[in-house]
Amino acid sequence: MTDARGGLPLLSPMSEVAGRMSVQVGAHHLEKEQGGAGILLGGVPGVPAGDVVVIGGGVSGTNAVRMAMGLEARVTVIEKNLQRLYDLDLQFGPSLNTRYSTVEAIEELVTNADLVIGAVLVPGAAAPKLVTREMVKAMRPGAVMVDIAIDQGGCFETSRPTSHDKPTYIEHDVVHYCVTNMPGAVARTSTFALNNATLPFVLALADKGYAKALGDDPHLQHGLNVHKGDLAYKAVADSLGLPYTGWTA
Amino acid sequence: MTDARGGLPLLSPMSEVAGRMSVQVGAHHLEKEQGGAGILLGGVPGVPAGDVVVIGGGVSGTNAVRMAMGLEARVTVIEKNLQRLYDLDLQFGPSLNTRYSTVEAIEELVTNADLVIGAVLVPGAAAPKLVTREMVKAMRPGAVMVDIAIDQGGCFETSRPTSHDKPTYIEHDVVHYCVTNMPGAVARTSTFALNNATLPFVLALADKGYAKALGDDPHLQHGLNVHKGDLAYKAVADSLGLPYTGWTA
Amino acid sequence: MTDARGGLPLLSPMSEVAGRMSVQVGAHHLEKEQGGAGILLGGVPGVPAGDVVVIGGGVSGTNAVRMAMGLEARVTVIEKNLQRLYDLDLQFGPSLNTRYSTVEAIEELVTNADLVIGAVLVPGAAAPKLVTREMVKAMRPGAVMVDIAIDQGGCFETSRPTSHDKPTYIEHDVVHYCVTNMPGAVARTSTFALNNATLPFVLALADKGYAKALGDDPHLQHGLNVHKGDLAYKAVADSLGLPYTGWTA
Amino acid sequence: MTDARGGLPLLSPMSEVAGRMSVQVGAHHLEKEQGGAGILLGGVPGVPAGDVVVIGGGVSGTNAVRMAMGLEARVTVIEKNLQRLYDLDLQFGPSLNTRYSTVEAIEELVTNADLVIGAVLVPGAAAPKLVTREMVKAMRPGAVMVDIAIDQGGCFETSRPTSHDKPTYIEHDVVHYCVTNMPGAVARTSTFALNNATLPFVLALADKGYAKALGDDPHLQHGLNVHKGDLAYKAVADSLGLPYTGWTA
Amino acid sequence: MTDARGGLPLLSPMSEVAGRMSVQVGAHHLEKEQGGAGILLGGVPGVPAGDVVVIGGGVSGTNAVRMAMGLEARVTVIEKNLQRLYDLDLQFGPSLNTRYSTVEAIEELVTNADLVIGAVLVPGAAAPKLVTREMVKAMRPGAVMVDIAIDQGGCFETSRPTSHDKPTYIEHDVVHYCVTNMPGAVARTSTFALNNATLPFVLALADKGYAKALGDDPHLQHGLNVHKGDLAYKAVADSLGLPYTGWTA
Amino acid sequence: MTDARGGLPLLSPMSEVAGRMSVQVGAHHLEKEQGGAGILLGGVPGVPAGDVVVIGGGVSGTNAVRMAMGLEARVTVIEKNLQRLYDLDLQFGPSLNTRYSTVEAIEELVTNADLVIGAVLVPGAAAPKLVTREMVKAMRPGAVMVDIAIDQGGCFETSRPTSHDKPTYIEHDVVHYCVTNMPGAVARTSTFALNNATLPFVLALADKGYAKALGDDPHLQHGLNVHKGDLAYKAVADSLGLPYTGWTA
Repeated sequence: MTDARGGLPLLSPMSEVAGRMSVQVGAHHLEKEQGGAGILLGGVPGVPAGDVVVIGGGVSGTNAVRMAMGLEARVTVIEKNLQRLYDLDLQFGPSLNTRYSTVEAIEELVTNADLVIGAVLVPGAAAPKLVTREMVKAMRPGAVMVDIAIDQGGCFETSRPTSHDKPTYIEHDVVHYCVTNMPGAVARTSTFALNNATLPFVLALADKGYAKALGDDPHLQHGLNVHKGDLAYKAVADSLGLPYTGWTA
Repeated sequence: MTDARGGLPLLSPMSEVAGRMSVQVGAHHLEKEQGGAGILLGGVPGVPAGDVVVIGGGVSGTNAVRMAMGLEARVTVIEKNLQRLYDLDLQFGPSLNTRYSTVEAIEELVTNADLVIGAVLVPGAAAPKLVTREMVKAMRPGAVMVDIAIDQGGCFETSRPTSHDKPTYIEHDVVHYCVTNMPGAVARTSTFALNNATLPFVLALADKGYAKALGDDPHLQHGLNVHKGDLAYKAVADSLGLPYTGWTA
Repeated sequence: MTDARGGLPLLSPMSEVAGRMSVQVGAHHLEKEQGGAGILLGGVPGVPAGDVVVIGGGVSGTNAVRMAMGLEARVTVIEKNLQRLYDLDLQFGPSLNTRYSTVEAIEELVTNADLVIGAVLVPGAAAPKLVTREMVKAMRPGAVMVDIAIDQGGCFETSRPTSHDKPTYIEHDVVHYCVTNMPGAVARTSTFALNNATLPFVLALADKGYAKALGDDPHLQHGLNVHKGDLAYKAVADSLGLPYTGWTA
Repeated sequence: MTDARGGLPLLSPMSEVAGRMSVQVGAHHLEKEQGGAGILLGGVPGVPAGDVVVIGGGVSGTNAVRMAMGLEARVTVIEKNLQRLYDLDLQFGPSLNTRYSTVEAIEELVTNADLVIGAVLVPGAAAPKLVTREMVKAMRPGAVMVDIAIDQGGCFETSRPTSHDKPTYIEHDVVHYCVTNMPGAVARTSTFALNNATLPFVLALADKGYAKALGDDPHLQHGLNVHKGDLAYKAVADSLGLPYTGWTA
Repeated sequence: MTDARGGLPLLSPMSEVAGRMSVQVGAHHLEKEQGGAGILLGGVPGVPAGDVVVIGGGVSGTNAVRMAMGLEARVTVIEKNLQRLYDLDLQFGPSLNTRYSTVEAIEELVTNADLVIGAVLVPGAAAPKLVTREMVKAMRPGAVMVDIAIDQGGCFETSRPTSHDKPTYIEHDVVHYCVTNMPGAVARTSTFALNNATLPFVLALADKGYAKALGDDPHLQHGLNVHKGDLAYKAVADSLGLPYTGWTA
Repeated sequence: MTDARGGLPLLSPMSEVAGRMSVQVGAHHLEKEQGGAGILLGGVPGVPAGDVVVIGGGVSGTNAVRMAMGLEARVTVIEKNLQRLYDLDLQFGPSLNTRYSTVEAIEELVTNADLVIGAVLVPGAAAPKLVTREMVKAMRPGAVMVDIAIDQGGCFETSRPTSHDKPTYIEHDVVHYCVTNMPGAVARTSTFALNNATLPFVLALADKGYAKALGDDPHLQHGLNVHKGDLAYKAVADSLGLPYTGWTA
């Protein structure tokens, strides 16, 4: 589903929650007992703060930036849409480092980071592998990576899905946190957030029936993936190599 | 040891680290898998943030406040020194709720909190039990308490020391985190912080010998607890019921 | 009249002025001599600030929020458009509580407030009565309500229009301020604000004549309510139950 | 009474309340119906904000500054203690104009102000008349003056005490607000504030008796004006031309 | 070239750089040795800051505002688009004075300024002469003017192009800085900024050839001024009085 | 001369001015035409900002930090007094990097900086040479150094005094700005600042004569270097190897 600004209103709350949680889990796994380097993200006066790199400046990346800055880390966001970089600069001011996304920038920043947060989302498609295995090998021992995009396959080459039971594994001395369904850990907050977002659509579906509701609201219609056995969402059809039929009432 | 403002320069860095960590561990244990209520401290737009109560506005309390506000929780600090309340108000502005410490204020705030941080430090003496068992019983299930004062005996009646191996236990449905030596989890940051603080004193002791160094610097002298079998620190002597001898070269 | 973002450029300045004034009049009427509870909105360090609830996050609501936060009250805004809630969160940060609009949220917040500001505007239509008489009865004695929407009929069930001569009345022990034409009290500021907003349209009308000016500018055209005896504005026609004719040169 | 920083701990809360209220009453009386110029303190975008001048940067002046900046006025504080000017600059940043107190600075700023707040307090002595009648004559019609120092005789030459019943009078076309006991209007907030400040002293007096309590605490002792018929406070003795006896148990 | 919001993506980085530099060169030329009045833009506590007036609130004007506020000057921006004034107010808050653009406002503000920055850009057309010679004559001796619009002919009547070799001249006792190609002075920063902005278009041209690239992307197409001898950009054609042919593959 | 906090009230205003100017001259000399690397201190969104290192966190260093952060550079301050580091952290928040002063920290930071500001002041004694020639050799070509301590001999090994006529020279490809009497360039601001600071002392000297004025005010007395042929200031006497006589009326 989409909204008037091209956003994804139903995914947004979950992306917000995951983005905010990513910093909290990153800070936790930087503790020595969790396999991390024993670094406090914000440092203390006289001792340098940790370096956080957030790849992707969409909803989840922006929320990760916000929490990482709240914990007083040194934060850089990498983003390929220049207008979005401007907006992030406007929102966070000069305390946030903004970098245009190139392979060189990613490599330079990731290999010097204490915490890397992968927040790349291509709606309906697999996430691109922006951090390669070679880059991970070059990272500091005890660094932490959190892959928010794991539900779309992950944006680190070394990512593989984990669960809340055993959220991390260590590869090349780097802690990987790749829990699918991150927002489940804060179910109470997530449920309220989702209710706020779905209520208007639920009311529309209940009042009008699905056919009319979808016909009236192109954004709701964009939320349809499969309809009567046909693929109604183009990006999914493309990424699966199946025919795209669109939607007709 | 003391400094010219009556502070404790060697404990300060560890109090800073513990104060900052307390929010990070509090956020972590509010996750469902850790026994918490499944609440994200900062909420998301449209969903209320969690309520954090910090008892004590000294070094560790102030650092806890700072991180809790950074994670966008609703934060109240309770402090009995009115001048200190003014300073906190000056530092954090109206976003921080400041409350004068009375039994009523503590009870009202603690029983409505999602996260309570005990940050009461009476130099050289046992911490007062400001949160009673009755108050803990009245808290919400899944709330979290972090007792930074556990090294001085703790400031919650229900606190008992834990370790980084098994940092929490649940009592009256409330998660208790009472790890002694919290800063050990971020050893890298803590070590740098401690080095910065001790270096000037170490240099003085090495250059001058202990007798002259202590004679020259009353703050260093205040750091002496036992000297040639006698108790040289008054508060310790008082709390142990032993005679206080002071220090003479 | 509308602008390219769907705003109302000529009403905006008056909504800004009314929104900002609403907090100033609210603070004034919380004084004991005016019938209020004798509460200072911002409190002082150690004493809780007053609770302000702003219903509606449009132009006047946003300006009310801004002034209430400026006076250091604890402020919550209630809004039914989730995207607008996100924007308010972005603008004001975590110091502002944002709540999605439901009957339950309104009831909970209004009955615990010291000052309620009604800032609901449905262009060209009557304001909905979001605060019921029952809610008003449950409010604290000496609380204050300011109904900015009074020119559209008011958004509290207990509102009835007042004037600058006698701006308030007390009902159910709650002070009601329902002055129509609030901006008149700060005529000097209002006049400048209105001049800035109308100048471009006035110049267009003067230069081109009304027919061409309206033909050239759809936003100006939207400002037309009645044209040659016909209703040219759909929402007005609908709310009066009269036929809507649109506009043709 | 004094505190360790030379402050006045029992007067402080009332000075805070009065300082904060002074802006609220100033804004109110700038409304046309109250005799003011019809100016909204914060203006709106595109329309200049009102000019507020606060004379004196102590407790009440600082609180006035804070509220006036909160309402988005353009604020200048005049102060004769350069160190205090630095502190105010540190607290409020470049948005606050700070001016060293000279007759020229006062004249220039007062005659161009929309709201002048007199916040000059000389402990135990009469307030100096820093704003002369000539300056008031040169002010804009409809400007407002609030004299917080009225309890010490006022710091404007044209001030005379008023009450909450009839708080203002107009002289030289300028609205004068000179209510003695301003904090009485927000009695609820004031009472809590005063309780917080007096509680430690009350407990000391009750526990120890007045003689021992005064003997133990030089700050409490400074609060004594008359003791067994003798004047125990030097500034009062001096300003009354009576002998000063000090205090002895 | 344009972008989806009507911006000019390739000019934007250069406008940003020029806007930011304008304050830096303004501050430099206010030094006595450079012919200026010997004023430090931000003043110091107790001494008034300098007055900066920025004419035009587009990309370069906004960046100038940002740096001037960063240096703690008193800044006013003049803008004729009311919506843009609102946005600037939102971005910078009450510390920025925003004024609607009228001849009177420009005259009043310019003649009282220490530094005037001309940041008016009409895409593809000559800049309007908003500051007249008469206004310049009325300015303070030693004031500084920086004309960012000099590449479009300048927006001060007294402007004439200069170079980095001899960047200023003095006319009517006012220092004029009118260097064309300002961003050349910080070539390293400018080059990176331009690369970020052009990369996507360069890739499109390289991959697809110019005809298809222009056909696919209307924004790229808007960047075309002359095509096969014809004028393909309307504003340029209009300002040169030549026929406009548009573009066809 | 000293003040009650151990500060230097007459030097403070000049240190403030020099500290603020140091960033302005640094930014200017980073321009290519001035020999610099062609870097804009604040960068633009997507392009990294310049790195500024301020050595010394006293009055001039703090003012340099403030302006450098205002221009949106990435700023690190190096300071050996831990309490002062805490105060700077409190004042500027996490956007400022604070580092405890060690030879290693200075070397690491200086050799990676675009602009180094030397702001080390030891009252009455020669400044220590904290930046060695070897460090300067390791800096980037086109980097800029500003030595505010040049009046006390400079704190870079490669510093030699310059004047406003020819303010810089290049050594090891690094631009050195070592103008003595920097505040002279903004004479107007400096004069007002100095007047504010000296007025109280001038009045005391005029009213009482120098002997009584010095006898009454130990801070004024500290300002005396030579009295009737004897050295009355200990640090000067020590650094010159001459006997110290103190002061007696």
